[in-house]
Amino acid sequence: MSCPFSGSRTGPTRRGLLVGAGGALASVGAGALARAATPAAQAPAALSEPFFGRHQGGIATRQQTHSYFAAFDCLAKTRDDLTGMLQLWTTAAARLCAGDTARDLGQDPSVEGPDGGSALGLSPSRLTITFGFGPGLFVKDGVDRYGLAARRPPALIDLPKFNGDQLEAQLTGGDLSVQACSDDPMAAFHAVRELARLSYGFAQFRWAQQGFLPDAPAAETARNLMGFKDGTNNPRGSATSPTPDSPRNFEEVVWVDEEGPDWMRGGSYVVARRIRISLEHWDRTEVDFQEQVVGRHKYSGAPIGKANERDSLGLDRLDGDGNPLIADNAHVRLGAAATNAGAQIFRRPYSYNDGIRFTAERWPPWRQGMMYDAGLFFLCYQRDPREGFVKIYENMAKLDALNQFTTHTGSGLFACPGGIGEGEFVGQKAFM
Amino acid sequence: MSCPFSGSRTGPTRRGLLVGAGGALASVGAGALARAATPAAQAPAALSEPFFGRHQGGIATRQQTHSYFAAFDCLAKTRDDLTGMLQLWTTAAARLCAGDTARDLGQDPSVEGPDGGSALGLSPSRLTITFGFGPGLFVKDGVDRYGLAARRPPALIDLPKFNGDQLEAQLTGGDLSVQACSDDPMAAFHAVRELARLSYGFAQFRWAQQGFLPDAPAAETARNLMGFKDGTNNPRGSATSPTPDSPRNFEEVVWVDEEGPDWMRGGSYVVARRIRISLEHWDRTEVDFQEQVVGRHKYSGAPIGKANERDSLGLDRLDGDGNPLIADNAHVRLGAAATNAGAQIFRRPYSYNDGIRFTAERWPPWRQGMMYDAGLFFLCYQRDPREGFVKIYENMAKLDALNQFTTHTGSGLFACPGGIGEGEFVGQKAFM
Repeated sequence: MSCPFSGSRTGPTRRGLLVGAGGALASVGAGALARAATPAAQAPAALSEPFFGRHQGGIATRQQTHSYFAAFDCLAKTRDDLTGMLQLWTTAAARLCAGDTARDLGQDPSVEGPDGGSALGLSPSRLTITFGFGPGLFVKDGVDRYGLAARRPPALIDLPKFNGDQLEAQLTGGDLSVQACSDDPMAAFHAVRELARLSYGFAQFRWAQQGFLPDAPAAETARNLMGFKDGTNNPRGSATSPTPDSPRNFEEVVWVDEEGPDWMRGGSYVVARRIRISLEHWDRTEVDFQEQVVGRHKYSGAPIGKANERDSLGLDRLDGDGNPLIADNAHVRLGAAATNAGAQIFRRPYSYNDGIRFTAERWPPWRQGMMYDAGLFFLCYQRDPREGFVKIYENMAKLDALNQFTTHTGSGLFACPGGIGEGEFVGQKAFM
Repeated sequence: MSCPFSGSRTGPTRRGLLVGAGGALASVGAGALARAATPAAQAPAALSEPFFGRHQGGIATRQQTHSYFAAFDCLAKTRDDLTGMLQLWTTAAARLCAGDTARDLGQDPSVEGPDGGSALGLSPSRLTITFGFGPGLFVKDGVDRYGLAARRPPALIDLPKFNGDQLEAQLTGGDLSVQACSDDPMAAFHAVRELARLSYGFAQFRWAQQGFLPDAPAAETARNLMGFKDGTNNPRGSATSPTPDSPRNFEEVVWVDEEGPDWMRGGSYVVARRIRISLEHWDRTEVDFQEQVVGRHKYSGAPIGKANERDSLGLDRLDGDGNPLIADNAHVRLGAAATNAGAQIFRRPYSYNDGIRFTAERWPPWRQGMMYDAGLFFLCYQRDPREGFVKIYENMAKLDALNQFTTHTGSGLFACPGGIGEGEFVGQKAFM
């Protein structure tokens, strides 16, 4: 593989930043000497998440407050180019998650290509980097570019078109995904950017999306831009305490086991949906109405008529007129495991805020103008999207009362390989 | 003023969130009872910044890690509508900065309009809200809409067109500005959104921009997306320690004094520039070259040939060939007070990251494709932009070597009135 930067790359075990260079630089002049005053930061252990292990980071990891998700089109011409790039990515990602630069800063400033430096001196702030393989990596336009066609898992489907989809091509799909999550937005963006630099000529950005969470207490379910708590009924073991409406455990819902190919064991499938929310519309509705739409009380997060967030939904409860207390088209009913023959997903969403754009809106009174391009960057993990997101959302896309406020403008499905062992690169077993 | 929400608004001194409602709700049913379980958060003092005082917050305030800046077009038809809106904004802003909701949550969920709730339970995380008046508030298209024409300060100029400007109308100008800064991105966005809701019919978004800073130690100058420290030579008193190249104090540079009208005393002028950076281009250049362009060493932040960030620039130093050690077109030289007859500004910039967009680029080899829409949301404060930003940037726009990497796509100039006293609304003296 002829990577433009492989010449200046050092081995994956080399971690130290450039430190005082002493005599070796004596003849290089004042500039280089000054440059030697380089920050030498190694992250305190508590601020770094493990990179190697049975699972990739960023899935079971307690959700960080910032995310940068990028989808790439793969340009690599050969299988070796592709694996070479994945090796570079893996090495750099391990360094970044440990609080190091993506590549050695080097001592010769006339060489292009060391880490760009925008995260120098920062803690990784629990940085995780999660890689995914899209359908196009296996077969694209009918071509088996990398000899992987036979390795495509049946679960890595092409997502169907859902009712109401308004997907934009430039926000959809991709052969590879890289998500960096961190409690520092700079650390997350820096990580993706450095990996993108390592892939020049072999992969290029297709789309990218920043996201954030409120800095809420760890024990509390974070609220989204609709002002409601989001994630209460996640699988057991992923939240502070279980709810009666989440029948299954995180491990069972999320991780691919023996049903998957070797390289996916301990991995998961991520569905990404960029969901613009008509905040202007939502903000003009009454709290009462909002609660009917969601099926929960806004402030407490409790199911309609209940007192506590983690109370059972009680979907069969009727009001005095014999109507369901939680409406047939309420979001929480349509998403519940009980409504979907037990199907569950693990939601790990971020809010996003891309400013104000000219938008034509579909809600009445129909209008167009400068509106928020903000909403939910929905991410969910499951061991089989056919039995997870697709099963749940096909119905919701048609019936959910929330749909009048939401527009899905971007989408992707990626197979996130199992965890990476030291010395391996991500997804290595798929190439064996 | 007929504000759609003034009916449900309570006085500015009322701060408590909805707490247990007891007997008053006994007949309202289970839903309302459940709703009474409302988070009752009051921010710890250390996490809130003062709202009232001699200056508006968000200028001298130690920079928070997140910013949401919005420019509004004013639609108010009468002077009373405008002042009524500013009163609503002021009241809500004071509540938000104290960690409260923008408006009372109310007890009747069938009334539209309480705070939207997306920051419920969060700390304000040092939230500040800074208001500004644009030229259009005084005279627009030759019309003196609010009887303010005579109050327009000479310093509130129409910014000239600068060399290289590629301003987009939908990212430029505005009659009013609102910037929320917080260490929590949700708190910042929530604040602007709630103020926007209070102004329905009286002001509408023109443009908005999120921004972030790395979570760097408070004593260190934060790096921008170019990997360089940004802000070293800010006025004395605004950084950890003074530099020899910053001759004047923060107070002297920033705050309008007797030269300004009453309502601007203790205020300042903010220039906002949305500067896209060709990160793809920058990332392909050598560190050596980057340092020549900036005039500083990348890792240490020291002037070329010096050892420490805060060393004097030594602009008159020559190399062995008699050429300036810091190049004539180096960014740091062109921005220095010494180069600009002592002119100084206070920079309070944020990085921004708006994803990947199709962009035509001007750097060689010329190309177009999916590129970062990311860079610097440059904000600077000064007591007179004619003697500050305009004076400094007119020259830089023509000569700065950094310009080959930067494109100014948005711009605004706003007069930020002096601090607000309790019982006043922002800029009140301009209406007296």
